Amino acid sequence: MNKSFDNDTITAIATPSGVGAISVIRVSGAKAIEIVDEIFTGKNNLKDSVSHTIHYGKIKDSSNNLIDDVLVSIFKAPHSYTGEDSVEISTHGSPFITKKIIEILIEKKVRIAEPGEFTKRAYLNNRLDLTQAEAVLDIINSRTEASLLGARNQLDGLLSSKVQELRQMLLDSASFIELELDFAEEDVELIKSPELIKRIESIIFEINKLTNTYNFGRVIRDGVNVALVGKPNVGKSSLLNYILKESRAIVSPIPGTTRDVIREEVSIDGILFRFFDTAGIRLSEDEIEKEGVLRSRNVIKNADVILLIEDIFQNGSNELFKEITSFSKPEKILKVINKIDLGRNFSKQGDIFISALTGEGVEFLFVKLKEITTDTSIYTERSAVVSNIRHYDCLKKAKENLEGSLKSINNNLSGEFIALDIRDAVLSLGEIIGEVTSEDLLNNIFSKFCIGK
Amino acid sequence: MNKSFDNDTITAIATPSGVGAISVIRVSGAKAIEIVDEIFTGKNNLKDSVSHTIHYGKIKDSSNNLIDDVLVSIFKAPHSYTGEDSVEISTHGSPFITKKIIEILIEKKVRIAEPGEFTKRAYLNNRLDLTQAEAVLDIINSRTEASLLGARNQLDGLLSSKVQELRQMLLDSASFIELELDFAEEDVELIKSPELIKRIESIIFEINKLTNTYNFGRVIRDGVNVALVGKPNVGKSSLLNYILKESRAIVSPIPGTTRDVIREEVSIDGILFRFFDTAGIRLSEDEIEKEGVLRSRNVIKNADVILLIEDIFQNGSNELFKEITSFSKPEKILKVINKIDLGRNFSKQGDIFISALTGEGVEFLFVKLKEITTDTSIYTERSAVVSNIRHYDCLKKAKENLEGSLKSINNNLSGEFIALDIRDAVLSLGEIIGEVTSEDLLNNIFSKFCIGK
Repeated sequence: MNKSFDNDTITAIATPSGVGAISVIRVSGAKAIEIVDEIFTGKNNLKDSVSHTIHYGKIKDSSNNLIDDVLVSIFKAPHSYTGEDSVEISTHGSPFITKKIIEILIEKKVRIAEPGEFTKRAYLNNRLDLTQAEAVLDIINSRTEASLLGARNQLDGLLSSKVQELRQMLLDSASFIELELDFAEEDVELIKSPELIKRIESIIFEINKLTNTYNFGRVIRDGVNVALVGKPNVGKSSLLNYILKESRAIVSPIPGTTRDVIREEVSIDGILFRFFDTAGIRLSEDEIEKEGVLRSRNVIKNADVILLIEDIFQNGSNELFKEITSFSKPEKILKVINKIDLGRNFSKQGDIFISALTGEGVEFLFVKLKEITTDTSIYTERSAVVSNIRHYDCLKKAKENLEGSLKSINNNLSGEFIALDIRDAVLSLGEIIGEVTSEDLLNNIFSKFCIGK
Repeated sequence: MNKSFDNDTITAIATPSGVGAISVIRVSGAKAIEIVDEIFTGKNNLKDSVSHTIHYGKIKDSSNNLIDDVLVSIFKAPHSYTGEDSVEISTHGSPFITKKIIEILIEKKVRIAEPGEFTKRAYLNNRLDLTQAEAVLDIINSRTEASLLGARNQLDGLLSSKVQELRQMLLDSASFIELELDFAEEDVELIKSPELIKRIESIIFEINKLTNTYNFGRVIRDGVNVALVGKPNVGKSSLLNYILKESRAIVSPIPGTTRDVIREEVSIDGILFRFFDTAGIRLSEDEIEKEGVLRSRNVIKNADVILLIEDIFQNGSNELFKEITSFSKPEKILKVINKIDLGRNFSKQGDIFISALTGEGVEFLFVKLKEITTDTSIYTERSAVVSNIRHYDCLKKAKENLEGSLKSINNNLSGEFIALDIRDAVLSLGEIIGEVTSEDLLNNIFSKFCIGK
């Protein structure tokens, strides 16, 4: 797809909705400054002001009614977020006022921005590549240290530059093959080139290193789902309460999430853990309460870790284990023995012994939780991490293309075939950073943004 | 009270809470720029930058972890909202990020601002007087054209300058009396001075003009409460539905208001009307459902207008009228006859005949509603209007003081007494604009503000 877009001047409220001290309205596009000048009365003419300056004045409607006194910030192309001429109008934080000003702008042929359209324009104007644009959304949604850091690294281009580097290596290889094909009559020699095989293998190795970060990247971006499973009275709720009480970082829920499904969110060492208590929900299918069974199964299926809890007195988690493993992977399960404050029962076997009453063993539980969900060894502060399934899928596709090219070499296929596979891998990598895109892909990505970003 | 305050540098999130494209953090105080410089890395040093400029850069925490890339706006004293050095930090709109940055600022000995503290400082630094500071809150809370215009006029100083003018006239009179007292041995002559009486009377006249605007000012600021009362099936709900359907300006409710008490809010010609449907609630005390009776009575007591609805067939609103007038003023009641689409019943008497089905007569109902609640004759676009009960009470006090002084003159009391009454009136007027205040009064006013304003 060629990078192209309309020349509309767009606007949106950029601050969260509701009443506050101030609200900010963004305007971007070739005519942004000119149009705001028409509704703004201040000491200076905005058009003649330099970029990155702030101007106090009044916004009036077409009947010359004063709407608000505002601060207007001027950003001149290309030194703005979008890369276009942009204006930010800082108003008193009344939804009534912002609505009025947006209406006045619409009268002046400014259009309401689509969700993410400011960032999309930043991408189209080469201010950001696609992974960086996606990182902007991740930054806004970040709710823990780790998710913020991951998104920051992505915005700073750590993933982009790695992908760019691999893509360039492949482009060079493909060009080299194609060049040779132009000149050589017989290309068998070239294709068997151990040099080429080695290069492709090393690129596959690098891609594997990236895809191996995905499980961790996903976890730091989206959090870890933990299902608490166990018979009544083994202490599921007590454990959850202990964790909540101990944690100084209870994460505030995203507005709009249904409270009755998501239970409690806690940040443990900067990583978001989302605990689901399946208390009161039976697992077996022959129960009358079918919906409870389904819901419980869904929670367990979507869990990254399942804490299978029993206490030192009760048995019966073996049945539960069997049931769970009928639809979930056994390696996800951590068996937790609770109530060790009431004595040790040495016939009991489990991964972790805890007391939800005294907190003994809970720290170790946290260590285990992090171990099972995150491979911290691959994570250093400033490394490229894949956290987005779109990137992961593109990398997998590139890898498949490259493995195809190796097969072609081994099968003595013509150089054209090999070059084609490598070109496909280049396209897959290009799709990650947005060198190659489709309108659908862009719409899909930016529709997830809020309006005003 | 002397205007005095601490020298703390204060901070708060100025944008509404929640996720959005951007959030803005305000910092104000003598050290604001210096402190933000310590956590900000950009091309320019903020300290050396001129006022009203915007700087792109990064905020880092004390461990040098990057928190966000931000735009920092610099306002140098006295050219800022507070009159102090101020900074606005525009971040990605994540509550997690703003919380982090606030934490970093607190480490640097910046203090979280009290509600309204930025505006309070603007007042203490003589950027605004007290009525103007109060107008800022009214602007933020404004939800209709009329309420915004009223608050704007107040912020622009229309009320202040009127009060200031009256206060100055009184000050001159008091000084004149005191001067005469110093020189004259016998002051009887002076006190009877028809000139002085005329002057005081003219000031009382002006104060009356102001207090007469209060009913209207209150209505445009706070809206009109309308209670719908009537027997079952006379069409209370139908009327409400018709009004909502016809109105293009349904006003969004303030978050936090209990939905089951407030029914529907509509802006009619820029004025907020709040309709309470008392359907299903009986009025008479001997009913079992006591709470319903109480609630219904409260709605009616707090109403500015009571629409007493009957239809062309049913009778019985006379009893209701009697009941209502036992605890409410009859002049608040508008008798509405509904269902005129089903024929006219000429034995029926009412103020307004309507059809909630066809809408006939509803426009006239609107005219009547506005008539009964607002005296538009006193309202011209740029006039001083009293909308705040604090201002109203101070004006009433000033008027009482002046009437006292007139009485003293008539009773031939000593000039000292007269001057004292006039001085008291000066104080009452000074309290409106904040020339005279107490810590309690200021706390009371600014605690109603949101944090960040």
